[in-house]
Amino acid sequence: MKNKIRPSILPGFMELLPREQRIFNDIVRKITNVYEKNGLIPMDTPIIEKQEILMAKSGGETEKQVYNFKRGDNNLALRFDLTVPLARYVAQYFNDLTFPFKRYQIGKVYRGERNQRGRYREFYQCDVDIIGNGKLDIRNDAFVISIVSQAFKSIGLKEYKFQINNRKILLGLFQELEITDNGSIITLIDKYDKMDKKEFYKDLEGVVGDSKAKFINDFINIKGTGVGIIDNIKKLNISNDTFNNGLKELEEVIKCLKIFGVCENEYLVDFKIIRGLDYYTGTVFETILIGNENFGSICSGGRYDNLAQNYTDNIMPGIGISIGLTRLFYVLKEIGFVDNYNLEEGLEYLILPIGETLEYCFKVKEYFKKLGFSVDVYLEEDKFKKKLNYANKIGVKNVVIVGEDEVKSGNVLIKNMFTGSQIIKKVIENDF
Amino acid sequence: MKNKIRPSILPGFMELLPREQRIFNDIVRKITNVYEKNGLIPMDTPIIEKQEILMAKSGGETEKQVYNFKRGDNNLALRFDLTVPLARYVAQYFNDLTFPFKRYQIGKVYRGERNQRGRYREFYQCDVDIIGNGKLDIRNDAFVISIVSQAFKSIGLKEYKFQINNRKILLGLFQELEITDNGSIITLIDKYDKMDKKEFYKDLEGVVGDSKAKFINDFINIKGTGVGIIDNIKKLNISNDTFNNGLKELEEVIKCLKIFGVCENEYLVDFKIIRGLDYYTGTVFETILIGNENFGSICSGGRYDNLAQNYTDNIMPGIGISIGLTRLFYVLKEIGFVDNYNLEEGLEYLILPIGETLEYCFKVKEYFKKLGFSVDVYLEEDKFKKKLNYANKIGVKNVVIVGEDEVKSGNVLIKNMFTGSQIIKKVIENDF
Repeated sequence: MKNKIRPSILPGFMELLPREQRIFNDIVRKITNVYEKNGLIPMDTPIIEKQEILMAKSGGETEKQVYNFKRGDNNLALRFDLTVPLARYVAQYFNDLTFPFKRYQIGKVYRGERNQRGRYREFYQCDVDIIGNGKLDIRNDAFVISIVSQAFKSIGLKEYKFQINNRKILLGLFQELEITDNGSIITLIDKYDKMDKKEFYKDLEGVVGDSKAKFINDFINIKGTGVGIIDNIKKLNISNDTFNNGLKELEEVIKCLKIFGVCENEYLVDFKIIRGLDYYTGTVFETILIGNENFGSICSGGRYDNLAQNYTDNIMPGIGISIGLTRLFYVLKEIGFVDNYNLEEGLEYLILPIGETLEYCFKVKEYFKKLGFSVDVYLEEDKFKKKLNYANKIGVKNVVIVGEDEVKSGNVLIKNMFTGSQIIKKVIENDF
Repeated sequence: MKNKIRPSILPGFMELLPREQRIFNDIVRKITNVYEKNGLIPMDTPIIEKQEILMAKSGGETEKQVYNFKRGDNNLALRFDLTVPLARYVAQYFNDLTFPFKRYQIGKVYRGERNQRGRYREFYQCDVDIIGNGKLDIRNDAFVISIVSQAFKSIGLKEYKFQINNRKILLGLFQELEITDNGSIITLIDKYDKMDKKEFYKDLEGVVGDSKAKFINDFINIKGTGVGIIDNIKKLNISNDTFNNGLKELEEVIKCLKIFGVCENEYLVDFKIIRGLDYYTGTVFETILIGNENFGSICSGGRYDNLAQNYTDNIMPGIGISIGLTRLFYVLKEIGFVDNYNLEEGLEYLILPIGETLEYCFKVKEYFKKLGFSVDVYLEEDKFKKKLNYANKIGVKNVVIVGEDEVKSGNVLIKNMFTGSQIIKKVIENDF
């Protein structure tokens, strides 16, 4: 006899059992519905692309994580996000698209990350991006955040907070302070949440000196919502253009968030939000689950001045967000949200034939189908007890029992499996 | 200035522009809906698996086509179908699943095929499989076909034909004729449709001799629907058990197809259908588009006695079907079906602000949203003509024009972009 291979999947890959898969799909469906109701266009791109396309810009950490491989003479790679393929797509089909191009994409991406809790090597991203031709109004930055707000509400998620910043503010501040080594400070601030605060300050001091360190440290710890925070920042009287440009953009985003239905308790302006990826040029944001901040950001994004610059001379500014759905789902499992998920989906009716009643059972099935219910007929020749046991295990809401007496009378017995209540109902007029 | 990389994708990969993507997604949605209304459970598995898992059984052509690569010490592969991962899944989670396990899965699979029309290296499969524990009633074989029938009807596809066979019939016939070299004949019959018929007969004669060749050739050219064909075959008085067992199964499948709502014009019994893959052991079928047979099968499947034998000692017979959606979509484009597709999806209302009316526009948006419509607000500061041009290009059904007068009166102008008709409507009660 042949040796068996132990059935298993690779570490860092998520696979779900039926109930959780249903919940996962229900979440995807609700997010998709929000995206489509807001007029976003669906998009799908290959998971495998040319390496030169996907690696056009990357470097550092990302590059190491990409799944690269050769096939024949071709260097291939698996996409590691949905943004680079979008950049390639808008460049490639520029003449066929209408701008602003408002698209969503939900799909799997691949990163060979170190294996650790909540980090997956294959994970779903649910992205929204709006790409302009030459220009794109700052209002769109608030709009994409408002879409995620709607998406989260649609799945019943409440305890989240968008942390919003504009990179121009910090960059302008550094110019104003005559700091040239931006890179070091940005990397430092990016790590702020994970660092001991004294250590952070010491490192900052090492880069910019004592007085500037104090100013920067105070500045990045200003937080707030609404226009109040903008007024406070304006009082600092910083004259740098980049800084004020960023502040003006942030003010407009805050103003629009209100108009677009995002409440003040849903977001916070946080000047420590940087987003490591260097193509962001203005608005940036992350999203934490309140009380579960240690899981990291579940939805991030930002503004890029020129998305597709590696592939075309057309200037295409964009704003994008990405929900990291696999990680989000992992977190939702950890915090009990999945266990308590109110799953509407699932089988409504299971018809159990007794005796030679299959034909009639399918008429009964048709009856429930026409009413819009999901319905199945048990097809195995088993003892009734086993049939009922199956019904219990799959969690069907109602069973319909059809024996030969039921065929004669046209009445069927419907049993609610949750309440145990039974009713007898005529579902088909007898034709004999 | 940096050199640009020409934006392009790999040959053999399908990528769609917005309208076609919408149609593709609409088809997926309708198929999914049919699957779910029939009580099938959704499933999702990693695209990357261990090579030893995916290659447990394969050999020959498939093996050459698999995308294999190494990462660190691991030998990885991209799934080339959804059946092998299913086999691994039911073996791995055997104790957590309820049998018969009725699942559907829609996802991308990868095969490094020679690049040719209608053949893709990345393509969607829409699979339905029913897996039993120890046994599985033959009725399920008809049931999965009936589900595909419903799926095709739901997308408006009419001109298809299921070609159904049972491998036991041919194998029993070969036993009866005392032919030992099954492999050569099966390979030959599998290629029948692509061969010159005289050449076929000559090759067949070469393998089995003249008299047997005539008998087999006559036999495999019997076609028909309903029970009539079964009666004709019975008259041949072949006593082989395997043969008669296959015939009995086929008879039951035909009987059930009728009960399950599959019409006689939807299928044909065709003894030439073999399906190369050697794990099929009973029912096999393919599906052609009538008048477009040269595109090959758009949906195939069959029965396997022991699906997960490489991973477990549990005996799990199954019946599965797979719609090759990417190829089907390619064919539907070729034959004009996509061009004529009646796409209900798409944006219902686009609100065009004139002047400082953004806040009011979002109240109007909320009004349409609450009615269940998809609705968007144009956010760019553009001339009115450009806004209207955008509306035209994206194919929105209605535009809603909101200027300062509209805000004052509470009346908005709604223009149907298809008919050109306009109405003025009060959508919000003024609160001043």
